[in-house]
Amino acid sequence: MSVQPEAAARRRGRRPAGEDTRQAIITVARSEFAARGYDGTTLRGVARAAGVDARLVHHYFDGKEELFVAAMDLPARPQEVVPLILGPGPDGVGERLVRFFFAVWDPPAGRERILALLGAALNSPEAARMLREFLARELFGRIAHSLGGEQPELRAGLAASQMVGLALARYVVQVEPLASAPVDDLVPWLAPTIQRYLVG
Amino acid sequence: MSVQPEAAARRRGRRPAGEDTRQAIITVARSEFAARGYDGTTLRGVARAAGVDARLVHHYFDGKEELFVAAMDLPARPQEVVPLILGPGPDGVGERLVRFFFAVWDPPAGRERILALLGAALNSPEAARMLREFLARELFGRIAHSLGGEQPELRAGLAASQMVGLALARYVVQVEPLASAPVDDLVPWLAPTIQRYLVG
Repeated sequence: MSVQPEAAARRRGRRPAGEDTRQAIITVARSEFAARGYDGTTLRGVARAAGVDARLVHHYFDGKEELFVAAMDLPARPQEVVPLILGPGPDGVGERLVRFFFAVWDPPAGRERILALLGAALNSPEAARMLREFLARELFGRIAHSLGGEQPELRAGLAASQMVGLALARYVVQVEPLASAPVDDLVPWLAPTIQRYLVG
Repeated sequence: MSVQPEAAARRRGRRPAGEDTRQAIITVARSEFAARGYDGTTLRGVARAAGVDARLVHHYFDGKEELFVAAMDLPARPQEVVPLILGPGPDGVGERLVRFFFAVWDPPAGRERILALLGAALNSPEAARMLREFLARELFGRIAHSLGGEQPELRAGLAASQMVGLALARYVVQVEPLASAPVDDLVPWLAPTIQRYLVG
């Protein structure tokens, strides 16, 4: 793959033609994920639906996970985040995971995003399935498998249930004082829960 | 308050006139709770909106909590449930609470109810507020206050976040194996979390 001119154009502030192609692929991918779920979607299928060569999709996206992150407008790629959460070893993995979620969710844009995602999951079985498969495969599942305990899928599900419940209580239902409590006051409560689910 | 004829009629299987009045009060209460939240609704206000005497509302419902339980079609009254969960003392309160929720949610009717409640809370700030005030005041709040630890409201919110997250993961998003795991396999994971939040 050669150096692409749009990278240089982007740096100069112009909107390059490649940006439209990328955006078109993302739009198609969003429907494909919604229709087929995370597991059922392939880069080849997205390329076909978008009417472009599969190599073009691969040029813009380093794999299905990156395409999903772009399609859902997620703030970070699990592939990059998981090693940071796993860090030097199992000690402190609960705290690192809890702090990562607060860093993603607490800013206003993060709040909007989590509200939209949870709302979609409750109103559409397809959205729920997509979210479930992505979280299981790419985020919590990867962490739980790396830690090597028994029943990694169950551990991943339990950790996900606490973090999603926290999002619901803090950002949607806004239970006080949970909704306004500083992150540093909440971490000592939540980190041991996640640590026990993942490692204990 | 004298013995009411509709109780006898109900035992004989006929639908008594009083049943219509009760149902009318419930319908009005549902709108009042939605419009004013749990804290802002009064039995007097519901009576006024329904065009009946306040004593009639008191005749059918033993207080605001019972009216809310009827209006939301909840399966149990916190007033009756809380003493059972508190039981003989703080030991085992986490396990009793977790088992109570599974007993309420796991049957098909319970699943439908929790999906409807969570859906409403995500789609309407009023429904979220109503649910939040009810849970804080009547269920988790009452339990946490009775146990006498520091920061009872925060403890109540954390326990609620885990149980709501569990409902979302097991019934809505259906993360496996969490969605299909037998209750007895899940209790040993969840009970210590709730125990620590409420008592630890």
